Amino acid sequence: MKRTLGTCYYPEQWPSDIWAEDARRMVAAGLTWVRIGEFSWAKLEPEPEKYDWAWLDRAIQTLGDAGLKVVLGTPTATPPRWMLTRHPDMLAVDRDGRPRKFGSRRHYCFSHEPYKVECAKIVGLMAERYGPNPHVAAWQTDNEYGCHDTTISYSDAARVAFQGWLAKRYGSIDQLNADWGNTFWSMDYPSFDDVDLPNLTVTEPNPAHSLAFRRFSSDQVVAFNRLQVDLIRAQTDAPIAHNYMGRITDFDHFAVGDDLEIACWDSYPLGFLEDRVGADAARQRAFARQGDPDFQALHHDLYRAVGKGRWWVMEQQPGPVNWAPYNPAPLPGMVRLWSWEAFAHGAEAVCYFRWRQAPVAQEQMHAGLLRPDSVDAGVMGELAQITAELADAPDVVPVQAPVAIVFDYDADFAWAVQPHGAGLSYFGLVLDMYRGLRALGLSVDILPATARDFAGYGLVLVPGMMMLADDLKSALNDSGAQVIYGPRTGARNAEMGIPNPLPPAIPNLDVTVTEVESLRPDMPIPLASGGNIVNYRDVLAGAAQSVLQTANGESVAMRDGLHTYLGGWLDPVAMADFLRAACVQAGITTIDLPDGVRIRDTGNERFWFNYNSDAVTCHGRTIAAAGVLRETRA
Amino acid sequence: MKRTLGTCYYPEQWPSDIWAEDARRMVAAGLTWVRIGEFSWAKLEPEPEKYDWAWLDRAIQTLGDAGLKVVLGTPTATPPRWMLTRHPDMLAVDRDGRPRKFGSRRHYCFSHEPYKVECAKIVGLMAERYGPNPHVAAWQTDNEYGCHDTTISYSDAARVAFQGWLAKRYGSIDQLNADWGNTFWSMDYPSFDDVDLPNLTVTEPNPAHSLAFRRFSSDQVVAFNRLQVDLIRAQTDAPIAHNYMGRITDFDHFAVGDDLEIACWDSYPLGFLEDRVGADAARQRAFARQGDPDFQALHHDLYRAVGKGRWWVMEQQPGPVNWAPYNPAPLPGMVRLWSWEAFAHGAEAVCYFRWRQAPVAQEQMHAGLLRPDSVDAGVMGELAQITAELADAPDVVPVQAPVAIVFDYDADFAWAVQPHGAGLSYFGLVLDMYRGLRALGLSVDILPATARDFAGYGLVLVPGMMMLADDLKSALNDSGAQVIYGPRTGARNAEMGIPNPLPPAIPNLDVTVTEVESLRPDMPIPLASGGNIVNYRDVLAGAAQSVLQTANGESVAMRDGLHTYLGGWLDPVAMADFLRAACVQAGITTIDLPDGVRIRDTGNERFWFNYNSDAVTCHGRTIAAAGVLRETRA
Amino acid sequence: MKRTLGTCYYPEQWPSDIWAEDARRMVAAGLTWVRIGEFSWAKLEPEPEKYDWAWLDRAIQTLGDAGLKVVLGTPTATPPRWMLTRHPDMLAVDRDGRPRKFGSRRHYCFSHEPYKVECAKIVGLMAERYGPNPHVAAWQTDNEYGCHDTTISYSDAARVAFQGWLAKRYGSIDQLNADWGNTFWSMDYPSFDDVDLPNLTVTEPNPAHSLAFRRFSSDQVVAFNRLQVDLIRAQTDAPIAHNYMGRITDFDHFAVGDDLEIACWDSYPLGFLEDRVGADAARQRAFARQGDPDFQALHHDLYRAVGKGRWWVMEQQPGPVNWAPYNPAPLPGMVRLWSWEAFAHGAEAVCYFRWRQAPVAQEQMHAGLLRPDSVDAGVMGELAQITAELADAPDVVPVQAPVAIVFDYDADFAWAVQPHGAGLSYFGLVLDMYRGLRALGLSVDILPATARDFAGYGLVLVPGMMMLADDLKSALNDSGAQVIYGPRTGARNAEMGIPNPLPPAIPNLDVTVTEVESLRPDMPIPLASGGNIVNYRDVLAGAAQSVLQTANGESVAMRDGLHTYLGGWLDPVAMADFLRAACVQAGITTIDLPDGVRIRDTGNERFWFNYNSDAVTCHGRTIAAAGVLRETRA
Repeated sequence: MKRTLGTCYYPEQWPSDIWAEDARRMVAAGLTWVRIGEFSWAKLEPEPEKYDWAWLDRAIQTLGDAGLKVVLGTPTATPPRWMLTRHPDMLAVDRDGRPRKFGSRRHYCFSHEPYKVECAKIVGLMAERYGPNPHVAAWQTDNEYGCHDTTISYSDAARVAFQGWLAKRYGSIDQLNADWGNTFWSMDYPSFDDVDLPNLTVTEPNPAHSLAFRRFSSDQVVAFNRLQVDLIRAQTDAPIAHNYMGRITDFDHFAVGDDLEIACWDSYPLGFLEDRVGADAARQRAFARQGDPDFQALHHDLYRAVGKGRWWVMEQQPGPVNWAPYNPAPLPGMVRLWSWEAFAHGAEAVCYFRWRQAPVAQEQMHAGLLRPDSVDAGVMGELAQITAELADAPDVVPVQAPVAIVFDYDADFAWAVQPHGAGLSYFGLVLDMYRGLRALGLSVDILPATARDFAGYGLVLVPGMMMLADDLKSALNDSGAQVIYGPRTGARNAEMGIPNPLPPAIPNLDVTVTEVESLRPDMPIPLASGGNIVNYRDVLAGAAQSVLQTANGESVAMRDGLHTYLGGWLDPVAMADFLRAACVQAGITTIDLPDGVRIRDTGNERFWFNYNSDAVTCHGRTIAAAGVLRETRA
Repeated sequence: MKRTLGTCYYPEQWPSDIWAEDARRMVAAGLTWVRIGEFSWAKLEPEPEKYDWAWLDRAIQTLGDAGLKVVLGTPTATPPRWMLTRHPDMLAVDRDGRPRKFGSRRHYCFSHEPYKVECAKIVGLMAERYGPNPHVAAWQTDNEYGCHDTTISYSDAARVAFQGWLAKRYGSIDQLNADWGNTFWSMDYPSFDDVDLPNLTVTEPNPAHSLAFRRFSSDQVVAFNRLQVDLIRAQTDAPIAHNYMGRITDFDHFAVGDDLEIACWDSYPLGFLEDRVGADAARQRAFARQGDPDFQALHHDLYRAVGKGRWWVMEQQPGPVNWAPYNPAPLPGMVRLWSWEAFAHGAEAVCYFRWRQAPVAQEQMHAGLLRPDSVDAGVMGELAQITAELADAPDVVPVQAPVAIVFDYDADFAWAVQPHGAGLSYFGLVLDMYRGLRALGLSVDILPATARDFAGYGLVLVPGMMMLADDLKSALNDSGAQVIYGPRTGARNAEMGIPNPLPPAIPNLDVTVTEVESLRPDMPIPLASGGNIVNYRDVLAGAAQSVLQTANGESVAMRDGLHTYLGGWLDPVAMADFLRAACVQAGITTIDLPDGVRIRDTGNERFWFNYNSDAVTCHGRTIAAAGVLRETRA
Repeated sequence: MKRTLGTCYYPEQWPSDIWAEDARRMVAAGLTWVRIGEFSWAKLEPEPEKYDWAWLDRAIQTLGDAGLKVVLGTPTATPPRWMLTRHPDMLAVDRDGRPRKFGSRRHYCFSHEPYKVECAKIVGLMAERYGPNPHVAAWQTDNEYGCHDTTISYSDAARVAFQGWLAKRYGSIDQLNADWGNTFWSMDYPSFDDVDLPNLTVTEPNPAHSLAFRRFSSDQVVAFNRLQVDLIRAQTDAPIAHNYMGRITDFDHFAVGDDLEIACWDSYPLGFLEDRVGADAARQRAFARQGDPDFQALHHDLYRAVGKGRWWVMEQQPGPVNWAPYNPAPLPGMVRLWSWEAFAHGAEAVCYFRWRQAPVAQEQMHAGLLRPDSVDAGVMGELAQITAELADAPDVVPVQAPVAIVFDYDADFAWAVQPHGAGLSYFGLVLDMYRGLRALGLSVDILPATARDFAGYGLVLVPGMMMLADDLKSALNDSGAQVIYGPRTGARNAEMGIPNPLPPAIPNLDVTVTEVESLRPDMPIPLASGGNIVNYRDVLAGAAQSVLQTANGESVAMRDGLHTYLGGWLDPVAMADFLRAACVQAGITTIDLPDGVRIRDTGNERFWFNYNSDAVTCHGRTIAAAGVLRETRA
């Protein structure tokens, strides 16, 4: 399959007499896809049940006539103002109990049933009308679920729905009280109706309560999405997608993805750098115009898994954005690098957000492919280069990676409920381990928590997965791969309790976590072999072989055969040593890469990417700043 | 006109039998003015419509008999407790939706109509009674509008008033929707009644919405003040003033000032240092007992403009205050320096806050001229020196400065709505440019955005003025002065949209801003000629001459004839070089001053001020720590 | 009296068939005491007025049969969920006006009268039932009053109760208005019903208002506790205690303690380190696994005073906790050190929290003496050592210390209302002076503000006690001890006004504070003799002898005979010099100790403690890391 390019377009925001010229220029720029419609509800239904489809008919026709394929978005992320008049209680409520008002976007609570009826109506009508349209080659549901912290709502609607969800999950209130250990502080509930949402408690709520609420909130997103998918699928065979936002982990993307054909994500490397990556200030400075060298790649690999192989970048940053603490321009060449990195990781399409910079409203400072005055923005030069390269070069051939990391949203919920140390997160741990693998030149596959088949992987990492299902333990045990568990893997049972026998309780691996501790950033624990434990440590006991020790001689990692439990969050030096040794054990070849230089192998090529702002020479190659090297693989 | 001194006095807080002795000592200390009354509503109207004027009659008589001139303040900043009982909804509401309760001061919403009726009643009665009083030589309306973040209120009263303001400004809801670009996220409003206040939205509200609300909030202050002015003016020819607070920019002081004869401001150099100046910690440390060397002067020049030439310092810090994060005592000599600096910038009067330190309530830790036990505070020695110097020295003769900066409150609103980079502000940019001029020994005039006559100025700076009216463009174009625009000048149209053609669209200056970026504090962009761009940058293109470049060769400033667009926020080194060159071009003589040493020229004298805590020798002069030098000018 | 050990146990959380074995193991481990019951309301009264005493009868019997003494806690810190249904308005309300919801603990407002009736009912029933029980050897009221910021509530119940409290205190509203100086900003109240709580005001409320509300809130705790004490005492002669939490100073522990026989406190040295001690990051790092070397000791001495000599550690941290920003494991040996330090300071008992780590709910990550799987945790080795040492060693013999510090909760309230500099607190000042004494090898007694007998003390410190009663001034004047007052001592009258004559107004000490200032952390004021003033300074005048000066020659401390006023908050260097000199004057022997090494003298022994993570050699001794040395005293 040839890799394609696209853009995001808002015909409703521009005079209709320029649509045709816009479409012509898109095609001329080498674009295949144009996503439209996802914020246009007020234009489609300006008054309740008074619809205006004419403009959208015409827009699709115009774009299609020019040779573009349309991705049609459902507009449910932006209900019109009249919706609030009809349903004043449809708003989500924040942690402090305040309704989150109209005036921007995503102003709805996933648990508000009447709003879901309204969504079903508009989506159903769109699906009926445009399902058969030949120009509509794909669909997108809503837009960026969870963005702006919108997964979790403390509304009355959410409370009532949560009580119903609890009743279904636990069957009886006694079971809930027992599973949550509510006896602890006399927190027993007489009935499900007495269970409130876990905000504004005097001190922290029961972690079982908080975890249940996060699971419920995730399920509500899945249900909201499924409602739309069912309506669309009834009218078309075109693939249905959702565009996930980077570093949003508060609902289960795999569960949403199970209902979709394609997983898309929105990649804003500079926008993410300060608040989402978690790197220190020096690293943020070093990559201020390039983005973190591993953050995008991790998402690429994650969404390849979420999309069961089919994934896109639906929104690619093409210049400065408007919403980060600081909004610098990308280093020249980075838009090309980001695009090729996506393709190297298997993206089917990369779409730039947005076609033309809007001169109005919230994103007027967000760059597009065109300036607000319709002149080509500077990035169009890079786009021309990409287009030419796509035409000339061989297509990317997907291939299984030698290493896999299991990624579990439920674990992220559990860490969020109980980070144990300030600022710690599951995502952060996974990113550090992913970074460690990438620094060794490795390509990585991400697997969901439901994976049971590990064939073909020489090494599987299962870090921080607090709830480890018994059948996953068995599958890993039987996989034949080297497996690295921990830290914190298997630390809790399904209801957030500490299991007995104590964690990790891995079959055929005699290791017990006897104590855990979290560490101040200024108190790393030195290892005997160099590097340090940082952030978090499981203290280990057991008969398995100690394969990594602190300078004091305490075991940090213990192994039996193919299975290793790692008890410490390792710093980059220790991580490299530990993972390099594991790869040797697993027969996987590694190559030490300088900071900011990364490799991605496909079936037929090796890509080298240089995220640094200077050229780098390594392993006999010189890669320019923001440079991309393609080499044919044997 | 001879410069005069005064103080702020609260007869209602002291036994009446000490008033006469207080008055005698004020006169003995060389004071001319005594401001009274502005917090005394509860004493004047202890119960609704039961008035007690006797004490105020007697206080004015006592002070006047001693030879003092009274400034009488209206008491509307402190409505009594019974007012709340009458009007429970009169309170302002904060951004989080919480009423801002009784128990301190400024507890009212500017949009609450019944409260305005109450204000009109008490002000009308005061004006009738004291307008003819010969001892009342000036009036003050209310006290420090906007202090404690009180300009903006999210109350129901504000919402309703805002909707009316919108209806008047836009005429039709279609026009508002079009002007704001509400199609963007389906934010179109069916009617004006559907427009809510722009707080508590899910993500940021439409910047056009936020800017309109800030303009509305500013207009409400202007209207509130005008109501009082009209009532007072009907009864007296005495000048009417308001005492603005430093670094309050959320209403248009020029618009308020247009209704007044005198602009006063309240100068607390140490109180301002930490939260309002914006300097880094090292600079705060260096000037911890002196205040920032340019912050007061900028306000002096600003209020000279707001007062159309007539301005005072109504409250001058005389010792430690109580309300800053840290409250050190001033370096000996600084009260004298601050006083003379005000006079050198043209102040008619400097009044010290307050006569006697209060032993009770919120400001009990705020120093006065007397200690709480009525003994002279240490500062009285400096006051005696000032009094002697005023008697001996020639009076200050006002003169037009060679350089002007246009200051636009509307630009400050727009930057507040859209700073683009964390912590950036219009005021901060203006202060940096003002500081740059002052470091070159220049005296500066501030001009309002309504200025069209620039005769006599060799150099005019128009930094960061996001909305630049066409007739101001023309006036600047025709002025014959060197004009420096930018960064960010002309960046938006009147409704916060990006104009087409792109900014800055200055006549006869072929420069286009093709992209903008904000910068992390740790990523300055070096210039070819030394120094750096910091904070914010406009990327420039066009046929005008490049007169400043980055180390990479990109244009930072471009000129055609007298007109220069500056695309970068410059650091002090770059700023000095750039402004020095501009002054050469404009034929203005500059003199490089050491940090903390500043010059102010009047018609007949040159004043040298040393804000440093050590003596400084420069240009053949030695100036003591906290020293003031006066030299006769040719 | 022999020192004893104990633990905290929750039979309701475990199957009853393991209680006997748990009890046996407790006894085998050397424990005497077992505290139970304090969170068990939902088990005792699962439905309103349906009681289940059987399980508790059996638990007490089982524990008692094993030879343990039971401390029985009243369960009022955790009202069951049905209580909320009955009394929806019983919740405390936070500063922002939000009810603090059910779902954790301490979810009640101390001013809610119907809830107090409910408490009286359950406590009365418990007292009747278990007062005569021979195994119940002591009682505990509620649990950790004030923990989780629960002393102060902004509920309607609190407002109404506050109004009543004011009416009682001031008699007439005119008196209140006069005492508070409400004329200041027209804040006069027409009636007590018009006085609101001092939250959400536009700017800071009147400090007299805030102080009154803090005093009221403290009194409500005292009254709440007394209600329970009266009911228990009617049924038993067993001693009654409360377990205070570390660094909670927002109610008067002395006043609560006056109603109790024993003062207990809950000692979590690592949990306290980051948010409660106030040390800088380097010090937090140095003692991350040991806790601050003076923080626990200060509490020991404080609670010895609160308990009038009888005090315990009711909850001793035995391993990592779960609730600090970071939760490291203690350095091996520290649990023993902490235990012996408590005994050296006079504790009757040290009880470890908790017996077995809970696998569920909020504290599942909080270590216990047993792991969740009932295996001994590592700390049991240290416990065995303590038990052996207790059996062998002579008992601790109490003795009066040579130095006393007066500790006044009312002063802490006043500083909280008016810190004058960011982050300053009374507790912080006392801790710094206590630390200074301890660095000189001194043992210290804490005395309440009601102390009038200072016999036997060579040196008495009265730092920061803003309200200094006249009869305390007299008693100190007559005491014959060296007395050090200040900084800030005597700075206010009883109603938070500045007194006249000015502070400190100490008899026979001609010193006047003419001005005060607070200091940025980066602007210490150097002293002539080394070290610095930090944080806060009183500027001094008067005829007394200057005994400490700044480098500029200003007086920092002034003395007349036995009495010295200290005007500056001293850094450790200056503090050591100043206190050493005072001890010389008072004939008290000092011994300079290295950082982290501390001494405590009892009647028959000198204990040396080493809080450092390395061995330290000093004064001819080598003390291991976490080491304890006992030496017989002459």
